[in-house]
Amino acid sequence: MSEIIQALTKILGPENIHCSLEDRMCYSYDGTFRTFLPDYIVRPKSTLEIQGLVKLAVANKIPLYPRGAGTGLSGGSVPIKGGIVLDLTRLNQIVEIDVKNLLAVVEPGVVTGDLHKAVEALGLFYPPDPASLKTCTMGGNVAEGAGGPRAIKYGVTRDYVMGLEVVTAAGEIIHLGGRTVKNVAGYDLTRLFVGSEGTLGVITQIIVRLIPKPEAKKTILSMFPKLNGAAETVPQIIARGIIPATLEIMDDLSINCVENHLHMGLSRDSEAVLLIELDGDKEVVEKQAPIIAQICQDNGASEVRVARNDAESEELWKARRAVSAAIVQLNPTKIAEDATVPRTQVPEMIRRLKKIASKYNLLMPIYGHAGDGNLHPNIITDRRNSEEMERVEKAVEEIFKNTVELGGTLSGEHGIGLMKAPFMKLQFTPEELHYFREIKKAFDPHNLLNPGKIFGGEESDGLFTSPKGN
Amino acid sequence: MSEIIQALTKILGPENIHCSLEDRMCYSYDGTFRTFLPDYIVRPKSTLEIQGLVKLAVANKIPLYPRGAGTGLSGGSVPIKGGIVLDLTRLNQIVEIDVKNLLAVVEPGVVTGDLHKAVEALGLFYPPDPASLKTCTMGGNVAEGAGGPRAIKYGVTRDYVMGLEVVTAAGEIIHLGGRTVKNVAGYDLTRLFVGSEGTLGVITQIIVRLIPKPEAKKTILSMFPKLNGAAETVPQIIARGIIPATLEIMDDLSINCVENHLHMGLSRDSEAVLLIELDGDKEVVEKQAPIIAQICQDNGASEVRVARNDAESEELWKARRAVSAAIVQLNPTKIAEDATVPRTQVPEMIRRLKKIASKYNLLMPIYGHAGDGNLHPNIITDRRNSEEMERVEKAVEEIFKNTVELGGTLSGEHGIGLMKAPFMKLQFTPEELHYFREIKKAFDPHNLLNPGKIFGGEESDGLFTSPKGN
Repeated sequence: MSEIIQALTKILGPENIHCSLEDRMCYSYDGTFRTFLPDYIVRPKSTLEIQGLVKLAVANKIPLYPRGAGTGLSGGSVPIKGGIVLDLTRLNQIVEIDVKNLLAVVEPGVVTGDLHKAVEALGLFYPPDPASLKTCTMGGNVAEGAGGPRAIKYGVTRDYVMGLEVVTAAGEIIHLGGRTVKNVAGYDLTRLFVGSEGTLGVITQIIVRLIPKPEAKKTILSMFPKLNGAAETVPQIIARGIIPATLEIMDDLSINCVENHLHMGLSRDSEAVLLIELDGDKEVVEKQAPIIAQICQDNGASEVRVARNDAESEELWKARRAVSAAIVQLNPTKIAEDATVPRTQVPEMIRRLKKIASKYNLLMPIYGHAGDGNLHPNIITDRRNSEEMERVEKAVEEIFKNTVELGGTLSGEHGIGLMKAPFMKLQFTPEELHYFREIKKAFDPHNLLNPGKIFGGEESDGLFTSPKGN
Repeated sequence: MSEIIQALTKILGPENIHCSLEDRMCYSYDGTFRTFLPDYIVRPKSTLEIQGLVKLAVANKIPLYPRGAGTGLSGGSVPIKGGIVLDLTRLNQIVEIDVKNLLAVVEPGVVTGDLHKAVEALGLFYPPDPASLKTCTMGGNVAEGAGGPRAIKYGVTRDYVMGLEVVTAAGEIIHLGGRTVKNVAGYDLTRLFVGSEGTLGVITQIIVRLIPKPEAKKTILSMFPKLNGAAETVPQIIARGIIPATLEIMDDLSINCVENHLHMGLSRDSEAVLLIELDGDKEVVEKQAPIIAQICQDNGASEVRVARNDAESEELWKARRAVSAAIVQLNPTKIAEDATVPRTQVPEMIRRLKKIASKYNLLMPIYGHAGDGNLHPNIITDRRNSEEMERVEKAVEEIFKNTVELGGTLSGEHGIGLMKAPFMKLQFTPEELHYFREIKKAFDPHNLLNPGKIFGGEESDGLFTSPKGN
């Protein structure tokens, strides 16, 4: 038994350390298509155990990768330099739900959907709703800065994190933020850690803000023969002073994939479908729904379905929920991007995306969050087809160039991780990247916490065409 | 003419540089009671001029203090080591209000209230509402992380800043964040700069998120013979799923000062007044107002006034708006604190504050934002009375000790600045303070941008009793 394994065993006991090839393979991937084998997987149960593990890793200069459920879409948790995967899913306790102070304290391994259920049972609401909410964890959500459909009205994970407990690379346990919404003592390290992708420290506890659960909701699905009609509808809704809870769009290819899959009577000739959900007080929702239906019709909708109850709502949501699975029937490898542009640039961005897909002869269904400009162009390909993967790589770079050109950002909600690191220079100047590096250095001077993420460099060369991992 | 003045003149022309004693005195203070004379005041009009000024200051190792309207309540902008005050009030353009993307681009010298008016004229809303909104500037709001009464429902400045243009100490112009709400590319430097008090760079442009203006509002003023009644009312409102736009409290001493001042018929025997404002859709506001009135009555309110129209609303708000001026009639020096505790600790905090006032024999009216736990205990004293100032200093330290003990923070919305720097060690461990310092070093290695703020040290010794400045 190696010295490292002996030392790990001393901290965790033998049952929470895994080194077999089978185990290492299980921890080699996330929601992207690249895999890298770690050397060890450790499964701590407490902050103190994590502190011991971090100290051990740093003392031995072993890279350490914090990991939640591995649902990430940017390679944020894959162990690209080998070393130790720190599986945080055993820290899965909802420590406290404080109804009077409208906050919850959770461990990083709590599944986001479980927190939803727990707080909703008490009449409260935790709005961030990444698509993977049934499996993804709060720690991963915070580390990657997760969003979701409800961001247009409610904001993203960042807007709900009030405080964090963190184990630093120096092995200290520090506390950032706290239990008050108003808090401007010192620099805002809480928000600095949100979206820092495990590169600055290991998040071991999270305090999130809650709000009262909206009383009612109402779902509207509208089909548009022309993309422009859907595109015009979005700002017109907002101009009426209505911010829906979600304002989702799917393009023609997505619609057809969903229809193949579900046969729910979506019009295959539609260039776009909008799925709009209102929530809030019952009176308001009932008042706003017909206004929105009218705006859709005024913009040429061929059909507007307004759910009359929760069951009908669920039925309409099926289309949106199915899309991610439905499109993979086209081909086995899905490259899910989350290029985000200002809301008014959504139609132009969709037009450009379609041109890119056609230029490189790629299948690229597009769906996403029209209300906040966060589109998901998904390249559906086959990673074994190296000729096509070369075209994929070029197309991805072109997507990001256009995103930045339209005033957008490389990532709305997936993080940069490994897969977008090579493109950071498209969005940031060398001066701006310098400050990112300085911050990394201040927290992790030996570059052992989730190395190779965000900053790019040799690790992320040839990600699509000549992978160093698998 | 000194070389420095020559160099400054080359950048700005002679008319925007001031060095006379009268001018220096005008820029020696903020909203606290301590004053320090700067050597030069410069009034640039553009980012490029600011870039030139920063380069000049750094090259000559001259401290530089960004300053807005000087309304700060923590000494955040006072030039404690002499040097250059960078008056940003000539950068006062609202560059853009983008109705469709719900955002505004402003220069740092824009008065917050002017932005309110401009966006409200277009049916939009910028929620942060510091009490000084008629004079304070957006740059100051961002630098200090300003809040206000509406934070309970709408959050604080941090929650609305989407992007920043910054001139760094290295003289670079960098861009943080952008025009999308969803944005997780790289570390969140935008939020790091919010509340950084001018210590990391000079903010030269700000992109803020806007929301639709609420359709209606309704104001309720309720008098409580017993503090406990008011205290119980707050969580009961929230338990009904109602988050008012504001939920303000005033204690007995504040009530009596206001009544002396305005004669508006407030009951002088009340231990507390709550001022509650609902906003949102008309139907909802009308539905919620009687619920709140009933909760107040159930908790022993002696009188509940519900405004029937905007004029009556304004009348009720007079009480809250007058309090800050009214209490200074007790004595000339006001030490305005913003200790913030979790919402449920407000009654306990008020009880402890009253004990501290009595122990040190000080006048301390208390008011503030009960809804978010952000109280304003105001010590009303006379700085010329050095014996009393010694008691003030002890009382302030005791206030902060109790704040932290109750799970709170030194500052909810005023920032740490100069006045609270000595107390940072009460809230943060040496390890936590170490990371603040590392970040400061990464951005301002020579400690020339607003030195002596946040971190404390020799500059903030004896702030109350043996000031080094005036």
